[in-house]
Amino acid sequence: MPDIHRLDTRDRDFAARLDALLAWESVADGAVIATVNEILEGVRTRKDAALLEYTARFDRLSREHGADLEIPAERLSLALERIPAPQREALRTAAERIRAYAERQRVESWVYTEADGTVLGQQVSPLDRVGLYVPGGKAAYPSSVLMNAIPAKVAEVGELIMVVPTPGGEFNELVLAAAAVAGVDRVFTIGGAQAVAALAYGTETVPAVDKIVGPGNIYVAAAKRQVYGTVGIDMIAGPSEILVVCDGLTDPRWIAADLFSQAEHDEDAQAILLCPDLAYIDQVAEAMDALLTDMPRADIIRTSLRARGALILVRDLDEAVSLANHIAPEHLELSVADPGVLAARIHHAGAMFLGRHTAEALGDYCAGPNHVLPTSRTARFSSPLGVYDFQKRASIIHCSAEGSRSLGRTASVLARGEGLIAHARSAEYRVSDASD
Amino acid sequence: MPDIHRLDTRDRDFAARLDALLAWESVADGAVIATVNEILEGVRTRKDAALLEYTARFDRLSREHGADLEIPAERLSLALERIPAPQREALRTAAERIRAYAERQRVESWVYTEADGTVLGQQVSPLDRVGLYVPGGKAAYPSSVLMNAIPAKVAEVGELIMVVPTPGGEFNELVLAAAAVAGVDRVFTIGGAQAVAALAYGTETVPAVDKIVGPGNIYVAAAKRQVYGTVGIDMIAGPSEILVVCDGLTDPRWIAADLFSQAEHDEDAQAILLCPDLAYIDQVAEAMDALLTDMPRADIIRTSLRARGALILVRDLDEAVSLANHIAPEHLELSVADPGVLAARIHHAGAMFLGRHTAEALGDYCAGPNHVLPTSRTARFSSPLGVYDFQKRASIIHCSAEGSRSLGRTASVLARGEGLIAHARSAEYRVSDASD
Repeated sequence: MPDIHRLDTRDRDFAARLDALLAWESVADGAVIATVNEILEGVRTRKDAALLEYTARFDRLSREHGADLEIPAERLSLALERIPAPQREALRTAAERIRAYAERQRVESWVYTEADGTVLGQQVSPLDRVGLYVPGGKAAYPSSVLMNAIPAKVAEVGELIMVVPTPGGEFNELVLAAAAVAGVDRVFTIGGAQAVAALAYGTETVPAVDKIVGPGNIYVAAAKRQVYGTVGIDMIAGPSEILVVCDGLTDPRWIAADLFSQAEHDEDAQAILLCPDLAYIDQVAEAMDALLTDMPRADIIRTSLRARGALILVRDLDEAVSLANHIAPEHLELSVADPGVLAARIHHAGAMFLGRHTAEALGDYCAGPNHVLPTSRTARFSSPLGVYDFQKRASIIHCSAEGSRSLGRTASVLARGEGLIAHARSAEYRVSDASD
Repeated sequence: MPDIHRLDTRDRDFAARLDALLAWESVADGAVIATVNEILEGVRTRKDAALLEYTARFDRLSREHGADLEIPAERLSLALERIPAPQREALRTAAERIRAYAERQRVESWVYTEADGTVLGQQVSPLDRVGLYVPGGKAAYPSSVLMNAIPAKVAEVGELIMVVPTPGGEFNELVLAAAAVAGVDRVFTIGGAQAVAALAYGTETVPAVDKIVGPGNIYVAAAKRQVYGTVGIDMIAGPSEILVVCDGLTDPRWIAADLFSQAEHDEDAQAILLCPDLAYIDQVAEAMDALLTDMPRADIIRTSLRARGALILVRDLDEAVSLANHIAPEHLELSVADPGVLAARIHHAGAMFLGRHTAEALGDYCAGPNHVLPTSRTARFSSPLGVYDFQKRASIIHCSAEGSRSLGRTASVLARGEGLIAHARSAEYRVSDASD
C-alpha cells in the first residue's frame, strides 16, 4: 500500500489532523530576501550592466550586449516548425480552446444616463505592457506559456514581454513554440530576480512593464512580492493541489492517476481523496501501488503523498461538500453520478472538474479554462487567472449642471460632517454658481 | 502667491522634475514591521487575551471580556437616529446612489455547451466573510464606511465585520450611523495591527474573515501586507491625488477649491493642474491665495502644495492627455469644453470627472462610483474598489465522454512533451476506457 495518510472524519482528532495537512507556509527566509533585494537594487540602478552580470553568474550565459539577450521572433517561428507535427497540432488546439474560453471573460465598458443628464460609467482598458515569467530547466512548461499569454492577448494588452532563463544557453523548443503560438511580442533569455527587476524597472534593453505574471522559484516569488506596487503581480502560487470527491463508482485506476497527476508536480504538492466507501478507498490505494511502478517521477509522487497526501473516509457526500468548502482546493474533481448538484453547493475552489470523464489533467492543457489557479485555500477570496487580470477599470462621472447642484448639496453636508471644508466648498461652488 | 511648484513642459528638466514630484515610497521601516509582527503573533496565538491587552495599551480602552469589544446593532441604529436629519438624509442619499452604481458591477456566472456535449463555464460566488477596517480619530470618515461596505453587501457577502478603534472609548456617531445605513453585520471597537490580526486569524470573539478592506495608518497597512495570503486584502493606498486638466475657461475659484480638496487630506497628498494658458494658471494661483484664508486645514494644504503640488503649463490639451496617462492619477478632472473626447484617450486613471460641473468631491461622497481608487500610478494596472472585489470565480469543466476522448489526446501529447506521465496517463484512461 502506498505511504499516504488515512483519515476518517469520525476520528476525534480529524479536524486537527486535516488542518495540519493543509497548512502551508512559503518560506522566503531572510537570506533569500536579502539576496533578492541586492539583485533588484543592482538592476534598478545599473540596468543592462547588472542584468548581464547576473545572467552570466546565475545562468552561465555570457553575453556582451543587452540586445544579445533577446530571442528574435524568427527563432520562435523556427521552434514551431521544428517540433514534431503532433506537438505543433496539440499546441494549436490547446491555444484555440484557451482563447475561445478567454473571449467570454472580457470585461466591457458601460455608461448610463440619469434623469437629470448626469452620466456614470466604467471605462475598461487593457494594460499597456505585461511581463510573463517562464521558468527554465525542468519546470519549463509550454502549457504555462499558453495559459498566461493568451488571456493577456485576448485583453489586447499592448505588448507582451516574455522572459525565460536559458541556463548554459539551452533552449526549450516547446516553450519557444508555445510563445510563437500564443503571439508573445518579445522574448528575453533572462531569469531569476534579475528578470523580475528588469521587467519592473526597465533597462536599456528590456522595457518596463505594468504587471508581471507567471510562476517561478522562491527567488522569483520573493522578487515579485518586493516589486508589487511598482508593478502589478498575479498571485504568489503555493504548491499544486487536487481534491477528488468520489462516490466509489469511478474506475479506481482513473482516480489513482488523477491523484498522481498532482503528486508528480513536486514534493510539496497535495493530493486528497474524499469518499464514503472504505472498500473503494482500498481499491484506489491498490491501484496507486500498481500505477506507481510505471511512473518516471515515482520518487516525487511517493514523497508528496507521504508528506501531504490523504485518503479520507467521509460519512457521505454532504460531508464531502462541506469539507471541500473548508479545504477550498485549487482543483476539485467531482467524480460522482450527479456532479452538478454538488458543484452548485461548492463556494470555494479554483476549478471544478465535473463527472467521471473530466480528468483534472484536461484542464491543465486544453479544456479551455486557465490552469493558473488559487492555491493554499486562497480560492476563498481569489479567482483563476483570466482576461480580467489584464484589464482595468476607470470610473466615469459626468455631472449635468442640475446633477451637480443636487449632488453638491449632499456632498456638502457629508464633507462638513467630516470636517473637510475644501471638499465642501468645491461642491458648493457648483451648487450656487451653476449656470449652464 | 501660494508656495507650489510651477513647471513648464518646455523646460529642459521637466520630465525629471515631474517624476521627482510623482515619486512616492511608503515607508514601513524595520521598527514598524517588527512591532506589527509581534502584535500579529500575539493575537494569532493568544487571541482575545492579546486583543484586550493591545486595545487597552494602544487605544486606552480597558475591557474585561472579548464580548465587551462588540458594539450592539441597536447602538448603530441609535447613532442613526441621533445625528441631525440633514446628515441622516445625506447618508441615505449617498448610500442609495453608491448601491445603484454597484449593482451594475456584479459579475454573473455563465456556462456554454460545446458540440460534443462538454460544458465549460465560470461559477461566481460572493466571499463568505469580509472585514472592514475603519480608522478612528480625526481620519474617521463615514463616507469610507459606505464606499467599502456597500459593494460587499451588493456582492452578497455572507457577513461583513467592521472594526473601528474608539480611543478612550470615544465614538464617532456619523461612522456608526453610516454602518447602520450600509448594513454592516457586526462592529468591534478595535483598531491597529491587532484588529487586522483578529480579522485574519480569528479570536474567541472576532470571527476570522476571508478578506480585509479599508484604509488605515502605517501599522494597519503593514499588518495587511503581512497577513496577505492568509486572507485577501484590497490595495495598499498611498496618499490621495488629483490631476486637473483645464482649458482655462472654468471659474478659477472652482479649480482652486478642487485642488485644495485633495491637498487638505494630508501633508503627502498631491494636487496638480495642467493647463495651456499661463494667464489662467496665475488666476488659479490667486484664487488659491484668497481661498486659503478660509480653510480650517490651511496648514495641511500649504504643506502638501509646497511638497508635492504643481501648476504645470502645457503646450496644448493633447500634451495634457499624454501627461495624464503618464501620471495615471487617482482622480482626473477634465475641466474642458468637450471632456468626452479627452476621456476616450485616457488609458490610466482611477476615476475621471468630466466637465466643469463635476467637482471631484462629488465622487468622494455621493456620485455613485467608489472613492477607493488606485493611487501612486497603480491605475496602470488596477481598478477602483468594486463589487467584483467581493466576488470570486471558479472554473467549470464538465466533459462528455466524447469530449474527454478528444481532449485527452491533445492533453496526452502535451503532458508527454512536458515529461508529466501521470498527467498523460490520467487523460489517456478516459480516451481508451470511455464507455458511457
